[in-house]
Amino acid sequence: MAATSAPYGDLTTQGASTNIAWHHASVDRAARAQQRGHRSAILWFTGLSGSGKSTLANAVNAALFERGLACYVLDGDNIRHGLCKDLGFSDADREENIRRIGEVSKLFLDAGVVVLTAFVSPFKADRDRARALVANGDFIEIHCAADLAVCEQRDTKGLYAKARAGEIKEFTGISSPYEAPEQPELRVDTGRQSLEQSVEQVLTHLGAAGIIPQAG
Amino acid sequence: MAATSAPYGDLTTQGASTNIAWHHASVDRAARAQQRGHRSAILWFTGLSGSGKSTLANAVNAALFERGLACYVLDGDNIRHGLCKDLGFSDADREENIRRIGEVSKLFLDAGVVVLTAFVSPFKADRDRARALVANGDFIEIHCAADLAVCEQRDTKGLYAKARAGEIKEFTGISSPYEAPEQPELRVDTGRQSLEQSVEQVLTHLGAAGIIPQAG
Repeated sequence: MAATSAPYGDLTTQGASTNIAWHHASVDRAARAQQRGHRSAILWFTGLSGSGKSTLANAVNAALFERGLACYVLDGDNIRHGLCKDLGFSDADREENIRRIGEVSKLFLDAGVVVLTAFVSPFKADRDRARALVANGDFIEIHCAADLAVCEQRDTKGLYAKARAGEIKEFTGISSPYEAPEQPELRVDTGRQSLEQSVEQVLTHLGAAGIIPQAG
Repeated sequence: MAATSAPYGDLTTQGASTNIAWHHASVDRAARAQQRGHRSAILWFTGLSGSGKSTLANAVNAALFERGLACYVLDGDNIRHGLCKDLGFSDADREENIRRIGEVSKLFLDAGVVVLTAFVSPFKADRDRARALVANGDFIEIHCAADLAVCEQRDTKGLYAKARAGEIKEFTGISSPYEAPEQPELRVDTGRQSLEQSVEQVLTHLGAAGIIPQAG
């Protein structure tokens, strides 16, 4: 291959603009944000089963994607069957589950991706450990605050019925506590408002926080 | 806020183009690839300590970034101190370390990111387990094939000297085996050729494999 047909010429050209890639051998978060036009962040959705965490996270993700932003949802579907498939539901395993999700979220954050996590994550201490992994402003706790009565009435997966029947032990809200965030960055009333309203609320917050460009 | 100033209007507008986001509520890999103009893949760099895995992975990452592609490097710096900080260097822990790296790589793959992993990963069985997590063609094993003699002579971190002195037990290549890939997608002679040549070799392969656009 002669120089004229060499791929990625700027890696081989001699001269002032030589080897531009080497100058960025460690591509960092700031460089990614500049190239993509948006910051990255961890959007940590927390709430009772049936509160709409996963639905809202996926809808926000879709809206971000439509705007061309780098974004990704971590949820039970892609975590519990993969990275955390060795973990059960003991206290220690639940804590380790949330720890790993926090660490993986940090990797996506570093990669310039707005990462949305959708797990019950009922314990304040676990959420605060995930928050402590990253800098101030990078962790946005979003409380999907539908009441237990609403979640139980929806019971989309039939889990509340099983929990009431004693078929599921330590079910959050029934036989295990949910420690609601005291000062989340955002509280979304997923029990009363529409999905559309909730998505707008999150996007407006992200715009105001300077993570994504504000709508014109 | 009146309709005229509502952010993200396409989420609220009534009509034929209503709620465009909802149609993509599960944004998938194909949609990401279409939007970004490149496929995602796992580039699994393997080789002895000092063979240049991390240097090559970071240089390829920088070159991909310069071309505007979504890419990210997983290496000891961001894995061993975070996601895998609970793991030591026993056989079981090394296996679990590689397992988690494989699972995290799969998440990045799903997120549309070209993910580059730079770990010794000396055992064929561990690498094959990572490969088996994803579809054919998504896992590109890249053997950084510098000879032991070259790596030991470089000894950039002083680890070979310590291993020879018995201060490090089970050091790959000295007191623990390195199972070289028999049929890697790519073998790079990082012992003889320049970093520039190695980067071009990888990029050319990615272009030919249809993962990234081929240079014009």
